[in-house]
Amino acid sequence: MECCKNGCENGDAGHNGEHVVDTFKASDVIIQRAGSSGEKPDPSNLVFGTVFTDHILSIEWTAEHGWDKPVIKPFQNISLHPAASVLHYAVELFEGLKAYRGEDGKIRLFRPKLNMERMLRSTIRMCLPTFDPDELLQCILKLVDVDQDWVPNSTSASLYIRPAFIGTEKSLGVKKSSAALLYVILSPVGAYFKTGSFNPVSLWAEPKYVRAWKGGTGDCKTGGNYGTSFFAQNEAMALGCQQVLWLYGEDEKITEVGTMNLFIFWKNEDGEEELITPPLDGIILPGVVRQSILDLSRKWGEFKVSERYITMENLVEAVKEKRVKEMFGSGTACVVCPVGNILYKNENLHIPTMENGPKMATRFLNSLTDIHYGRVDSDWAVTMS
Amino acid sequence: MECCKNGCENGDAGHNGEHVVDTFKASDVIIQRAGSSGEKPDPSNLVFGTVFTDHILSIEWTAEHGWDKPVIKPFQNISLHPAASVLHYAVELFEGLKAYRGEDGKIRLFRPKLNMERMLRSTIRMCLPTFDPDELLQCILKLVDVDQDWVPNSTSASLYIRPAFIGTEKSLGVKKSSAALLYVILSPVGAYFKTGSFNPVSLWAEPKYVRAWKGGTGDCKTGGNYGTSFFAQNEAMALGCQQVLWLYGEDEKITEVGTMNLFIFWKNEDGEEELITPPLDGIILPGVVRQSILDLSRKWGEFKVSERYITMENLVEAVKEKRVKEMFGSGTACVVCPVGNILYKNENLHIPTMENGPKMATRFLNSLTDIHYGRVDSDWAVTMS
Repeated sequence: MECCKNGCENGDAGHNGEHVVDTFKASDVIIQRAGSSGEKPDPSNLVFGTVFTDHILSIEWTAEHGWDKPVIKPFQNISLHPAASVLHYAVELFEGLKAYRGEDGKIRLFRPKLNMERMLRSTIRMCLPTFDPDELLQCILKLVDVDQDWVPNSTSASLYIRPAFIGTEKSLGVKKSSAALLYVILSPVGAYFKTGSFNPVSLWAEPKYVRAWKGGTGDCKTGGNYGTSFFAQNEAMALGCQQVLWLYGEDEKITEVGTMNLFIFWKNEDGEEELITPPLDGIILPGVVRQSILDLSRKWGEFKVSERYITMENLVEAVKEKRVKEMFGSGTACVVCPVGNILYKNENLHIPTMENGPKMATRFLNSLTDIHYGRVDSDWAVTMS
Repeated sequence: MECCKNGCENGDAGHNGEHVVDTFKASDVIIQRAGSSGEKPDPSNLVFGTVFTDHILSIEWTAEHGWDKPVIKPFQNISLHPAASVLHYAVELFEGLKAYRGEDGKIRLFRPKLNMERMLRSTIRMCLPTFDPDELLQCILKLVDVDQDWVPNSTSASLYIRPAFIGTEKSLGVKKSSAALLYVILSPVGAYFKTGSFNPVSLWAEPKYVRAWKGGTGDCKTGGNYGTSFFAQNEAMALGCQQVLWLYGEDEKITEVGTMNLFIFWKNEDGEEELITPPLDGIILPGVVRQSILDLSRKWGEFKVSERYITMENLVEAVKEKRVKEMFGSGTACVVCPVGNILYKNENLHIPTMENGPKMATRFLNSLTDIHYGRVDSDWAVTMS
């Protein structure tokens, strides 16, 4: 079993000769339809992640019996034992992806296998039971199909898909969960940029809070990476900034922004045009949009593309020398999010992203949304039949 | 409000002039008694944290209305919205303390205010709403009183008290929870060392996994610190060790062991007898037993007591020079837990803790359990009337 190689013991029951189920299967999905359907919201007025569809996909696992059959059932609360390991030891991880209704009326998901594979990696890191990521994708497609009326009929909105996986062990021992629940909920979401144009964000760069570190879980989508960030985020907001620019190490390497990956388009130290983003060295979340921006850039072959760090010192110098053209975050929610200012050591560092178009950020946004909404054919889109 | 000073915005509603309740009060506790009481287990056969008492203390909070009245009610599952922030972003923290039934039949808690104050610090770090720690202690005493028959009548067992505090925000936005639930459950637990004597543990010292880091939450009892440790713990067990010895930095500073603080009693570089434990610099959990061992040692005044780091290199050298006498973990579960071996760079480093008595570990264990069970009077004991 995958997990055993990594020091986990999810295969215990199997090793003892008992019958356990190694993965759930989409062909086993049981559908229990809701009696009625909720009112579909106007996507232009939605607050992210506050409205949910009629159904939830729920897949239970126990060490004793392995995976149970997946069930699509009416959206409902989850009942947990007060000692459940998710509530005490943050035995939890999640994913985020979207279903888009294209101009042709068809529903597409964007590179969902990357999400499923990342979820499996997070699962192994948290010592939860493994599964076949293709089977999970097929289960999710069934859920989206059941709730397909909830996919907004708008090319500036989408249906956000949130898989979550939690430990439900009913005891307080600090140990691998012997029970778990994988579930998926769906939430219609509006355009990230309401006006249709970019609104640049201001960042707070402060080394006293650290998002992730070598030997930790920064490259996995575990819950613990997120809740611990609220404190710094609130301090950023109190200082008039919208997001935290997370730094790392004594040399203050630039890592991520808020909950997004970060890109800088600049003229580098050698005078070359270069798109740069931090490398996947263990502290950076391997974002699907991040990967897609890198893939597009390399396909275009028009400028240098690098996965390497730059420090705050490098950035400040480059801004002073007017070598920085654009800086933007990337993520599923906004696709790309331009950066306009960085508050650093009580000084405001202006990033001329907007003054420069933002040409590069717009090009990525358009290239990706063209795929999302089926305006351009791409094998990155998984089209529902 | 405390929280506002720290960058949080829990006072928002208050700032807007609405009426919110700043803390719950023990005098408001509503008691809903269970119809019948569960069977009390034999404490000598208990697996830690698997059996629970008849009641749960539950205190709800919303940003809109502040704290609700505390309720002691029959032990029951917790119903959570599938988007609850505890399930996605690990908005959660906990505490652990014990109630002991002394030889005089009276029930005592050990320095519970230290737990309540630490819980408040964890609460602020996780941007959950603050409360008066004295009121929480009084609520917990009421819960223990209602379930007092569950406090084992044994001086080698106790009632483990587990306060937990979770974010129950019903939306997927990565932001401070606007709803939360503080609850407390109780679990009778047996002796940590079943034979009554010490069993030394073997540790795996490996720098590739890091428990906590500067700028993170290592000094708070947040869920995220624990679930992320399972992976390394499983790898330790696969290598025949029982716990992880957590290292930090390129110089491999010794920090904690498993979920315990760590002490070394040795002859230091200058030939002095010294008790040493890592300092509270942000990555070390400020344990109640840790503090008590330091306090006792300083009161005794018989040897040097230091809060400072030593590295693996220092330790290996000291073991070779036969300067290390004892090494032990400290925590609420075991009080003190002797260390016998460390697996480091594929070599077994023997620590002669047991050969040396363990004189110091036993002295701490006896001094503390004498207070727990009322054999010695101490203002560290809070005796229930």
